[in-house]
Amino acid sequence: MPVDPGSTGCHERIRLSFAKQGFMRTLRATLGDVSPGLVEIEIRPDSSITQQHGFVHAGALGAIADTAAGYAALSLMPKDRGILTVEFKINLLAPAIGERIIARGRVVKAGRTLTLAQSEVFADDAGRQKLVALLSATLMTVEGREDVRD
Amino acid sequence: MPVDPGSTGCHERIRLSFAKQGFMRTLRATLGDVSPGLVEIEIRPDSSITQQHGFVHAGALGAIADTAAGYAALSLMPKDRGILTVEFKINLLAPAIGERIIARGRVVKAGRTLTLAQSEVFADDAGRQKLVALLSATLMTVEGREDVRD
Amino acid sequence: MPVDPGSTGCHERIRLSFAKQGFMRTLRATLGDVSPGLVEIEIRPDSSITQQHGFVHAGALGAIADTAAGYAALSLMPKDRGILTVEFKINLLAPAIGERIIARGRVVKAGRTLTLAQSEVFADDAGRQKLVALLSATLMTVEGREDVRD
Amino acid sequence: MPVDPGSTGCHERIRLSFAKQGFMRTLRATLGDVSPGLVEIEIRPDSSITQQHGFVHAGALGAIADTAAGYAALSLMPKDRGILTVEFKINLLAPAIGERIIARGRVVKAGRTLTLAQSEVFADDAGRQKLVALLSATLMTVEGREDVRD
Repeated sequence: MPVDPGSTGCHERIRLSFAKQGFMRTLRATLGDVSPGLVEIEIRPDSSITQQHGFVHAGALGAIADTAAGYAALSLMPKDRGILTVEFKINLLAPAIGERIIARGRVVKAGRTLTLAQSEVFADDAGRQKLVALLSATLMTVEGREDVRD
Repeated sequence: MPVDPGSTGCHERIRLSFAKQGFMRTLRATLGDVSPGLVEIEIRPDSSITQQHGFVHAGALGAIADTAAGYAALSLMPKDRGILTVEFKINLLAPAIGERIIARGRVVKAGRTLTLAQSEVFADDAGRQKLVALLSATLMTVEGREDVRD
Repeated sequence: MPVDPGSTGCHERIRLSFAKQGFMRTLRATLGDVSPGLVEIEIRPDSSITQQHGFVHAGALGAIADTAAGYAALSLMPKDRGILTVEFKINLLAPAIGERIIARGRVVKAGRTLTLAQSEVFADDAGRQKLVALLSATLMTVEGREDVRD
Repeated sequence: MPVDPGSTGCHERIRLSFAKQGFMRTLRATLGDVSPGLVEIEIRPDSSITQQHGFVHAGALGAIADTAAGYAALSLMPKDRGILTVEFKINLLAPAIGERIIARGRVVKAGRTLTLAQSEVFADDAGRQKLVALLSATLMTVEGREDVRD
């Protein structure tokens, strides 16, 4: 089966943009599956991202969930556009304990100016995945600005 | 004027808890003013906390704003309690550009089980402060758990 | 096939509680499908629930979506409990135009004290359903209070 | 002192738009103080806006708080613009019990495309006001559409 050029392009675009994020590097976050409208980002809990009780910080969960939601939105946009987060809300459901924390972003509704995306955050403990957080985010499409692209 | 022992105790308690947060250390965040119901946290923008366009990552703003809101809530609680974030929403109003980013958390309503707190996030550029984000958070009081205290 | 007594009980409980809501009567809202963890509520757009441009008011969408989320949560609780909404966020995706507006609430995570539920709101226009809003809500379980039950 | 024509114009504009809202009429809501960036809306609790326990329905509080936030935003816009709510979040702090419920909307940040506004909702019981809810809303400016104006 021939490689789908659209999907490949989308993955490469997100990969290049992700590599520019100093904060994702600081979190040692990695990019997982990428397809049009769906993006996964993963972190591994360690003492560099904990809050005072030793759990993964809500802010770190928010950071990867917001990023996954944003890239899910970007993956559906024409090449000359960029995105900015307008707002996000995250509900924390359980302590994020496990070997890996995975944020799965998906587009709920893509609009011309605004896109709604949602991320589910799972803690993977020995292969068993548990939902630990749910985020919804409004992303704004930015056009014609050299400094806000991809 | 004698030092207010309540306020001193509150500052020390928050300071000790803050020092336990690996994520705040990773962000090189510092604790600013602390008084009952009011807590400030500060970061200095650099390439370790940026998103793909070079602005401070929404997730980093969310992290300090959530932490400031949480400690504002904790500062009003009896000593044997801890807090956990139930949810937060953050609206991003302008790119966070400046020498310092300051999150000012304050308690809106302290309840027995749930507290609502709000954080304003300012970018300080040469002494001029601009509101760049607004967060509201629901915090849950946790009692009788050794692992969730302060 | 015998009727599932659990599900029947859940439906009856929600139906009785729904009938007590003056606001649902004012909105001429009706209860749709009810099963454990899933509740539907429906309204028919008319001039009594519009905003200034003639679209269904965001507040009316929020009202049925919050109610559907709340009853989805209640449907999983023991009989002597009640629920109160702690917070909800609603994203409006498109004008709610159609013959019927349906809010479908479902439980995302049921906890002892707090439950997260989500409602999708669809506009049904000649049988074609379009997602017009998405709500997430935190519900608090209330126990031992005569005035907050069902 | 001469009447400020800007403020008078703003009040008249909001008053005319408010009168077109079928839902505000259904809620028997009334417009209170209006000034640039600040709008009050009031309801009187009765059995037509209650939920199952007899408290004012969270959806009714959301409706007046969203409307107050939206009109606060509109009050700062040029005459040919309209607004639509993108999203709102409301935190419920206490049962809304009293003779009057007042939502006070104010603009936090007015932008070209998006405005952030916040509403505090107070229950007035014999002249004593208590904060019962806090809403933040993102409003979108709509330009050049005959059907979305004022």
